[in-house]
Amino acid sequence: METIVYDTKDIIYALATPWGNSAIAVIRISGEGSIGLLSKAFSRPEALIKAKSHSVVHGKLVDSHSNRTIDEAMISVFASGRGYTGEEGAEISIHGNTIGIQEVLALLGEIGMRPAAPGEFTFRAFMHGKMDLTRSEAVRELIDSRTSTARALALDRLEGALYQRIESIKQKVLEVVSIVELQLDYAEDEISQDTSFPFDTIEQALSAVRELLGAYSIGKLYAKGARLVIAGSTNAGKSSLFNLLLKQERSIVSDVHGTTRDFIEAEIQIEGIPVRLYDTAGLRESTEDSIEREGIHRTNHLVEQADLIVLMLDGTDAQHARESIRLLMADPRCIVVWNKADVAAREHAPQGSIAISAKTGTGIKALLHEIVRRLTDSTQKIEGAAVVIESQRQYDALLQAQKALEAAVQFARKEVPLDIVAVELDEALEALGTLTGEVVSEDILERIFSNFCVGK
Amino acid sequence: METIVYDTKDIIYALATPWGNSAIAVIRISGEGSIGLLSKAFSRPEALIKAKSHSVVHGKLVDSHSNRTIDEAMISVFASGRGYTGEEGAEISIHGNTIGIQEVLALLGEIGMRPAAPGEFTFRAFMHGKMDLTRSEAVRELIDSRTSTARALALDRLEGALYQRIESIKQKVLEVVSIVELQLDYAEDEISQDTSFPFDTIEQALSAVRELLGAYSIGKLYAKGARLVIAGSTNAGKSSLFNLLLKQERSIVSDVHGTTRDFIEAEIQIEGIPVRLYDTAGLRESTEDSIEREGIHRTNHLVEQADLIVLMLDGTDAQHARESIRLLMADPRCIVVWNKADVAAREHAPQGSIAISAKTGTGIKALLHEIVRRLTDSTQKIEGAAVVIESQRQYDALLQAQKALEAAVQFARKEVPLDIVAVELDEALEALGTLTGEVVSEDILERIFSNFCVGK
Repeated sequence: METIVYDTKDIIYALATPWGNSAIAVIRISGEGSIGLLSKAFSRPEALIKAKSHSVVHGKLVDSHSNRTIDEAMISVFASGRGYTGEEGAEISIHGNTIGIQEVLALLGEIGMRPAAPGEFTFRAFMHGKMDLTRSEAVRELIDSRTSTARALALDRLEGALYQRIESIKQKVLEVVSIVELQLDYAEDEISQDTSFPFDTIEQALSAVRELLGAYSIGKLYAKGARLVIAGSTNAGKSSLFNLLLKQERSIVSDVHGTTRDFIEAEIQIEGIPVRLYDTAGLRESTEDSIEREGIHRTNHLVEQADLIVLMLDGTDAQHARESIRLLMADPRCIVVWNKADVAAREHAPQGSIAISAKTGTGIKALLHEIVRRLTDSTQKIEGAAVVIESQRQYDALLQAQKALEAAVQFARKEVPLDIVAVELDEALEALGTLTGEVVSEDILERIFSNFCVGK
Repeated sequence: METIVYDTKDIIYALATPWGNSAIAVIRISGEGSIGLLSKAFSRPEALIKAKSHSVVHGKLVDSHSNRTIDEAMISVFASGRGYTGEEGAEISIHGNTIGIQEVLALLGEIGMRPAAPGEFTFRAFMHGKMDLTRSEAVRELIDSRTSTARALALDRLEGALYQRIESIKQKVLEVVSIVELQLDYAEDEISQDTSFPFDTIEQALSAVRELLGAYSIGKLYAKGARLVIAGSTNAGKSSLFNLLLKQERSIVSDVHGTTRDFIEAEIQIEGIPVRLYDTAGLRESTEDSIEREGIHRTNHLVEQADLIVLMLDGTDAQHARESIRLLMADPRCIVVWNKADVAAREHAPQGSIAISAKTGTGIKALLHEIVRRLTDSTQKIEGAAVVIESQRQYDALLQAQKALEAAVQFARKEVPLDIVAVELDEALEALGTLTGEVVSEDILERIFSNFCVGK
């Protein structure tokens, strides 16, 4: 992708709804002077120009050169400072026909607007102080979320939960800074230093930072999901389990689709975690058949990339001694499942395995429970009021803040001169500032907003 | 599909934008009391209830049971009589995330609204007199249109062009009716019948009806498109022409996709006509190879269903005498194209064929021109102000009106008693009335609106 120039001077436009035919489509415009410009292509220019903020004007989009009606439109007007971007702007609701959408977009280009870059509306909202950077990122995270839980977490961030958490950490650090500065002043005035270093306050800030850092893996898990591979010898019942998991979970996100490859995948969610589920070719000892070798090769590749492996054993087959299966059983990502519990003798089940019957459904609940426990590390289940992060950028900034705060504590303990401690505290504040976007480079902004969809 | 009960009592909801993740999604609601009901799930109920028509209220959709925020929303409010349906209603703009859409739809269900049936919003607009039936049908035709021309024609109908045409025909018929009634009155009063029958007026009405009937095939062509099959012997250059037509025409509607079958299809438009283009397996004499036989069988099937066939001859091969090709050349749907004009000797081209070079592009313009001429029957090209119909229902009603008017004329010429003529005139009026929806059965309404998408 070429470099995107984000500025706030041009009047921009973009389709804000998905591409396709439907009842209506919405096109957004933003920029100072956008309503006046749009009125040139509108059948009721006066009505549009005089419209109050947050009012809807009905009329027709008209190509002024040919005097041709392009479409009927309902235009929601937003005055400067009042809408999403903080700029004068509008949302244009037209008939949901792809040809019509193209014609309206072309019309907006002709009257002097330019197509918006990805995330440019939210970029402008950020630039005009309508939302900080954690809220801006939450917009994309919300739109991209794949489960209800992930969406709820992103919505919390959009409502400012993360912003407030960071602000409260910053307050604590600022408290420490003000005490340190006071002590530095005393030192200059050669007044006795009876004020001790506020270790408690800085430790509170540190533990809040650590808590957010600790929530990264769980945030990422709910946002990005996990890869769960069902492996095992042939005829162990892998496909039965696969189908059962698809049926068991009512909230299937996408269809199973048989692929041309030799494995099947599907997206399900287990307790709010998006799980990409893979049903693989059965593991066999090395074979002469080259097609089969390729199948096993692919299974091994999937197993390598898995976050979790469900290794299925055929309960009616006492021989679990195959080389490849023994190797997998030792893998810490592996949940060993002993299938066909409805007909097999349970005493043969290996220690630590979960006995199930993919046929009758016995043991499936226990298996799901174990999957969630493994994925969330048991201690990290999402609670109602949890503030978690899923952004690598936020993680990196928090890590930087943590390092600086830890250094500050260490220096203070060693009674290193306070001006050196102050430098670390400043660094922590700056790292926290990049999180909310108080201090942020153009580079970082571009990287954040270019990951958005166009129209947001 | 089960029978849809269209009524105007319930409060209905539907997603009005395509299903998928995007910047925003819009959900429509309609029905008396809908704003009050929606306010129960809104963070600013008072603001919503007090909002004027055509104003936008910002707030949050909240599940009142759990007090959980479902999403942020911008709600455009429409008072009774003022919006699309003519009922109190709203358009709810939320974040474009599929999980979020599902949750908001579920929320609307929980507070007592019901999912809208296909076309139910437009049905209500019709029932409340916001638009006649020709405009209602134009809504669907506009959304479904596949080319700019088809869209422009549907937009004209939506703006009332067809309605006004029919009204003016009706006026003429009513004029005739009033004269006939006057004459009947005279007859009763035994006053001499010096007023002659208004043949001119009824002929004007008839010719306007005939004009609309004549425009049906052209309207259907632009709306539904044509199937164009490229056939010919192997190595005649069919695929080169296919690719050239795809490239030549900049306004490709969908991608070419190689299918698992033995032909390739793509959607292009030629001068505003949506054309489904098929590249077929080469025609050969009967072969022993069963797979090849199947290929030829499918080509024959495509050829049977084609609106137009481009039969390609290999210019470098003087033998065009193959049985299957000779048979095709006699088909009136066939345009014979003599390819490889860049290297072959033109004197061998069969009479009436178009010489092209799919390699250099020579002759392609002439071929496109001929394709359009054949499809539009040369006389029927769409002019700027044309009113055309594409609906079978409208065609049938016009046909009925035509028959009745013709009968009326005939009876009048034969001086059949005027009360019999009057019956035919009434029938014509009724047929015209069903066109605009003045006189229409529930059955017909259901058939019309069930073809809509949900949300419109």
